[in-house]
Amino acid sequence: MATAADTAEEELPPSRFSDEEDDEEEVEEQRGSMKEPLLEHHPVNLRRLAPNNTSQLAIVGSNLCPIETLDYELIESDLFNQDWRSRGRAAILRYVLFKWTFCLFIGIVAGAVGFFNNLAVENIAGFKFVALSNLMLADKYWTAFWMFTGSNLALLMFATAITAFVSTAAGGSGIPEVKAYLNGVDAPDIFSLRTLVVKIVGMITAVSSSLHVGKAGPMVHIGACLGAIVGQGGSRQYHMTWRWLRYFKNDRDRRDLVTCGAAAGVAAAFRAPVGGVLFSLESLSSWWRSALIWRAFFTTAVVAITLRALIDVCERGKCGLFGKGGLIMYDVTAENITYHVADLPPVILLGVIGGILGSLYNFLMLKVLRLFSIVNEKGRAYRLLLAATVSIFISCCLFGLPWLAPCRPCQKDDCSSTSQSGSFMSFQCPPKHYNELASLLFETNDDTIRKLFSSGTNDDFQKSSILVSFISSYFLGIISYGVAAPFGLFVPIILTGASYGRLIGMLMGSNSNLDHGLFAVLGSASFLGGTMRMTVSVCVIMLELTNNLLLLPLVMLVLLISKTVADSFNPNIYDLILKLKGLPYLEDHAEPYMRQLTVSDVVTGPLRTFNGVEKVGNIVHILKTTGHHAFPVIDEPPFSSSPVLFGLILRAHLLSLLKKKYFQPTCTISGCDVTKHFVADDFSKRGSGKQDRIEDIEITEEEMEMFIDLHPFTNTSPYTVVETMSLAKALILFREVGLRHLLIVPKSSSRAPVVGILTRHDFMPEHILGLHPFLKKSRWKRLRFQKSTISRISRSYLMWACS
Amino acid sequence: MATAADTAEEELPPSRFSDEEDDEEEVEEQRGSMKEPLLEHHPVNLRRLAPNNTSQLAIVGSNLCPIETLDYELIESDLFNQDWRSRGRAAILRYVLFKWTFCLFIGIVAGAVGFFNNLAVENIAGFKFVALSNLMLADKYWTAFWMFTGSNLALLMFATAITAFVSTAAGGSGIPEVKAYLNGVDAPDIFSLRTLVVKIVGMITAVSSSLHVGKAGPMVHIGACLGAIVGQGGSRQYHMTWRWLRYFKNDRDRRDLVTCGAAAGVAAAFRAPVGGVLFSLESLSSWWRSALIWRAFFTTAVVAITLRALIDVCERGKCGLFGKGGLIMYDVTAENITYHVADLPPVILLGVIGGILGSLYNFLMLKVLRLFSIVNEKGRAYRLLLAATVSIFISCCLFGLPWLAPCRPCQKDDCSSTSQSGSFMSFQCPPKHYNELASLLFETNDDTIRKLFSSGTNDDFQKSSILVSFISSYFLGIISYGVAAPFGLFVPIILTGASYGRLIGMLMGSNSNLDHGLFAVLGSASFLGGTMRMTVSVCVIMLELTNNLLLLPLVMLVLLISKTVADSFNPNIYDLILKLKGLPYLEDHAEPYMRQLTVSDVVTGPLRTFNGVEKVGNIVHILKTTGHHAFPVIDEPPFSSSPVLFGLILRAHLLSLLKKKYFQPTCTISGCDVTKHFVADDFSKRGSGKQDRIEDIEITEEEMEMFIDLHPFTNTSPYTVVETMSLAKALILFREVGLRHLLIVPKSSSRAPVVGILTRHDFMPEHILGLHPFLKKSRWKRLRFQKSTISRISRSYLMWACS
Repeated sequence: MATAADTAEEELPPSRFSDEEDDEEEVEEQRGSMKEPLLEHHPVNLRRLAPNNTSQLAIVGSNLCPIETLDYELIESDLFNQDWRSRGRAAILRYVLFKWTFCLFIGIVAGAVGFFNNLAVENIAGFKFVALSNLMLADKYWTAFWMFTGSNLALLMFATAITAFVSTAAGGSGIPEVKAYLNGVDAPDIFSLRTLVVKIVGMITAVSSSLHVGKAGPMVHIGACLGAIVGQGGSRQYHMTWRWLRYFKNDRDRRDLVTCGAAAGVAAAFRAPVGGVLFSLESLSSWWRSALIWRAFFTTAVVAITLRALIDVCERGKCGLFGKGGLIMYDVTAENITYHVADLPPVILLGVIGGILGSLYNFLMLKVLRLFSIVNEKGRAYRLLLAATVSIFISCCLFGLPWLAPCRPCQKDDCSSTSQSGSFMSFQCPPKHYNELASLLFETNDDTIRKLFSSGTNDDFQKSSILVSFISSYFLGIISYGVAAPFGLFVPIILTGASYGRLIGMLMGSNSNLDHGLFAVLGSASFLGGTMRMTVSVCVIMLELTNNLLLLPLVMLVLLISKTVADSFNPNIYDLILKLKGLPYLEDHAEPYMRQLTVSDVVTGPLRTFNGVEKVGNIVHILKTTGHHAFPVIDEPPFSSSPVLFGLILRAHLLSLLKKKYFQPTCTISGCDVTKHFVADDFSKRGSGKQDRIEDIEITEEEMEMFIDLHPFTNTSPYTVVETMSLAKALILFREVGLRHLLIVPKSSSRAPVVGILTRHDFMPEHILGLHPFLKKSRWKRLRFQKSTISRISRSYLMWACS
Repeated sequence: MATAADTAEEELPPSRFSDEEDDEEEVEEQRGSMKEPLLEHHPVNLRRLAPNNTSQLAIVGSNLCPIETLDYELIESDLFNQDWRSRGRAAILRYVLFKWTFCLFIGIVAGAVGFFNNLAVENIAGFKFVALSNLMLADKYWTAFWMFTGSNLALLMFATAITAFVSTAAGGSGIPEVKAYLNGVDAPDIFSLRTLVVKIVGMITAVSSSLHVGKAGPMVHIGACLGAIVGQGGSRQYHMTWRWLRYFKNDRDRRDLVTCGAAAGVAAAFRAPVGGVLFSLESLSSWWRSALIWRAFFTTAVVAITLRALIDVCERGKCGLFGKGGLIMYDVTAENITYHVADLPPVILLGVIGGILGSLYNFLMLKVLRLFSIVNEKGRAYRLLLAATVSIFISCCLFGLPWLAPCRPCQKDDCSSTSQSGSFMSFQCPPKHYNELASLLFETNDDTIRKLFSSGTNDDFQKSSILVSFISSYFLGIISYGVAAPFGLFVPIILTGASYGRLIGMLMGSNSNLDHGLFAVLGSASFLGGTMRMTVSVCVIMLELTNNLLLLPLVMLVLLISKTVADSFNPNIYDLILKLKGLPYLEDHAEPYMRQLTVSDVVTGPLRTFNGVEKVGNIVHILKTTGHHAFPVIDEPPFSSSPVLFGLILRAHLLSLLKKKYFQPTCTISGCDVTKHFVADDFSKRGSGKQDRIEDIEITEEEMEMFIDLHPFTNTSPYTVVETMSLAKALILFREVGLRHLLIVPKSSSRAPVVGILTRHDFMPEHILGLHPFLKKSRWKRLRFQKSTISRISRSYLMWACS
């Protein structure tokens, strides 16, 4: 066994960047003279002595978990190649058939789950509001208050408790975790069956508890869970497995299924099939192929058809309080919208304010998450206590605020005394009157949004009510999200945007001919653009929600403006949360300073390599003493005339080899009979967090002295870069091809055939800036604002979590 | 100067695939025994003696042109890096500002061009039909016939003539060329100002000439042209250049602009901004970034707003015959579509038949293109003759067919005697009667589609008329496309699909409750799915065209079915045309047999390398004797202790160096004063087909003996693969990162530091199967059907073109 570290110089290279620590003005002056010689052939030094000390932990759901990188590379070992070649036409056909069957399955289940969620929420929350309304009509105000607060508290406590005690990975919206997974970061339990169940049940109860939270984020996670579970052949823990799914036991196929699942989740949440595909494409996934678009599209089409069929059932009135208002679908087609160039200024204004409010929302959200995390860190009891406090506070706000609003006489038919979905509520008002604020607050969020979006209702609400409703939903939304239970951000953002948009519409008064309902729609779009910074997908989702294509140019305009404005303040909410959670997300662009570095400037070590035929003892020792997930295999004399890079072998495969105990007594190449002892399935990747551990494998002293021929199990086609490659270009390769390990080969032939391995963590800004602190000062660091603030927050957040 | 070929063994390697030439059954039997040893360390042999003889020519537009690969790699030479580092904040800001300004410009111009095209077509064709109608009313049938045929002939001859004499690159739809460009294949003149003008004028006249052709394809090309022209800083030929656009003088930025331009073209053609972005994403572009989605979206939003503003102008009635029907927008919102599970069977049937008809359409189209190409090859006169024949034939068909149809009494108001857009035509019928076929045929395609799509018109047409209309549009569309003039396929396909869909609806009779207009819409979708095989983008375009989101699940269903059915017969029409044209399109997936090969199995030579400091004479000699576009630079003693790969230098950069004549008398490293003599702009990439040639540079005998220090101009970060890398994985790298050259480094250290270069042509199936003919027989070859047929056709097509 050779450690290439032996050949490496141990001194740190003289910094070629020291010039750039100077002030910017000075650099500006020196530009002409160019102190740095163009041809400085600086010695290549690999810092093999210091390991990469970036955190291998991140917050997944609401708890700190170990994370692991996914491997999208094709493993081309001889064994795998033989297996692949031995697959007949039937096997290939079966593979293709399964791929599509899985999508069909994901689509049907996601559609059914989305429908069931809505049904449950509408019935639980609807029943609550009916009871409340009846008590208010009977003038039993205190009873109503206690009933309201009590039921909200009970629902939220249940959601928080199952999250804390059964599956912490189910907490939060799950979108950052799904985004990280699709970027290549895996964590145990994020896609387990347990998480799925907790997510569904917790989301229903949490959303029913009048918190300002939504169903869309969890639906994305639920869809992704479904994809991952079918992809790993069921759940081993609960003995629900399909043994014949071996072709899907790799990260590539699972990634595709998770992508389709996430798209299905969005489609089910919003009944927006095209929007779902686009959301997956624009916001979630980091790799994409044209063929996958089609598969995702198929999945969301199945979702749409499933939903349609289920709604057909419900239209026969068998779904309790789940009426037309059930699924989010703010049908405003009735309105034949006309607008002209003169209507643009208010729309532009809407976009600008939406951008400012959105970035402020992100900023405040981050602060609140950080604050709440200090409480959450102290244990489950504190989490429950926090949830209880938030629930009671919100219940009080919701119950208290309507008393400020005046009573107004009813003008329409739907101002009924018995509260039903979508009607106007009398609250404390005399009969034939309604309380504006109560009509906005004592509803499920979906119904409130529908009210705000509807056209021809310019006179239903007064400015003051809408203002109060806007302020309350803005801040209650922020506070709600800090609770460690499963729910999302989408719906509260749409709601907040709708009330703010309507407010702007009212303030415009006669200066604009546009309907206030239209203003509400555009307000929602602008606020979505300001917080989530998605464009095409939000646009399509808004169109599919409102079912009005004529809105398109206006929605596009407002989105573009709000995104542009907000981008100048901070990144989008999901990226902020990703950073806060400490997930090592690999951006698709290189930071400017990466062009100043070569791969050898960041690689850490020590590098451990194996010989083609290696002693078992060495393997066990190295696996025990390092955490590396892959090792280069070098053929040295007598197996070759000079040291030759044979390939890369994965830790997981080594562990499988050791478990099988297929050892040989002498150091020779074993020949071609490995397929008698092994099948490719022995090396297939298992589900998240279900890896073998070296500690669990028992090897006798005698076996330790034996040998393994690693050749048939080694990936013979690892991707490589020369050590002088710039880090920026290595990142492009790493990210575009979806690698987990990237070998570094020497530029000259006098060295060992491989001099280092790059992993995801070597590209993380924290690592690079830690190795080269002077880059922090240089103006090549980064252009985005506030990122430093975020990473500071993130660090402190991680600190409590680690402690 | 060292040619690494010296070190290569000259024998061909023993074929490791010879086993697989056996019949499949035999291989099936042998699977257990595995003849091939797993560890056969076969000697690596690079076939450096045989050059890659794949064609460097392809048909662009309607003529054979030399093609060239684009280079999306970041060139990280010292000179470029210095330049990049010297850019201040202002330069970066200016760059970003320009990027967005360009998109704004592209959007506005594409919108305006799209509008103008429609205006012109509606007016020219409208005037023609009004005149025809008036003549018919006056019973001057023969005059009408001659007028009709004559005007069609004149219009088409004009379009064909300007294409043949001014810019042959403007012929056809242009979508295959744009797709190839975005894949990395460049051809001179495809995006020149001349092509743009010919495309616009030719398209207007060709579409007005009653050929069954559309405007959408050319609009994509026009949009892409606009993008490329602003990207290369205007047109040098016509002295319309902007000198300060140097940052965009590279292929990466141009690719982005072309992508945005293509999206804008679709958006302008269909008034479908979201559809435009998706079309670009799904069908055209091979590389995509999330940031680019946003930019494309901005461009199409600008298009939508521009169109809206221009239509506002036209609504005041200043646009002649361009009325409400101007832009394709088949508004069927009035219809409140309801459908249930019972309506699915006819929809599924529609999808299946659409798929079959679509693949047959592709097949026939290919046959016709091949047949017509035999005529077209004979020169411009023959092209014109062919166009004339087609035009007269189509005119006769269109004029003759309505005589077969019966006269029916008018039932509606729009059955006016004076023909106007969208009305029913009396043709030879008595007053207050209309001729069904004439009403379908004597219209612009847009108006016919609108008639077929409209709901509540189940009784307007009889089965026989729709059948005749379907057959005529099916075959006339195929025939029309063979003419070498600028037009597209989209609209004829929509039209054919609409008539076929309506026919199915009629045949369904009382078995379906769906409206015949809805059947027409779904028929169009199924036929688009069957020919073009796009899913998400066609779906969104159909929704944006019909302005009815309720159709979504049905359209999705029908698209999925028709695409699946058609995919089992042949590839999509654009891929077929790409192959026919001989454009070296790089697929995003590796063919199965590529996993059986290593990069050294396909690389061809001889490899030419340069020393770090090279003699001018050597450079000139190599540039004159090879066509290579890049050369590895090797540092040899005395500049380094052993041969070291320094980087890769481009031919274009060498030519710039030779032109500048910055030579030095001795073989030494020149030092750091290159920026005194060079700026990065000297090496910036010029527009398509405007490269320097070595023959144009005059070097004296004395200069030939001098030296150039290549170090500062060499890209020090070329991408590399080890020679044992499998071809499939090298392809993934090549394609995902968007390379032009991929260096092959040796696996052992006893060889030259670089042993070969892979280019796009080395991944072409023709090349690989030419080197390893036994792969053709193996079942690892390919799964798709008919590809071999296509390449046969393609070869014969190329043969005439080359001759």
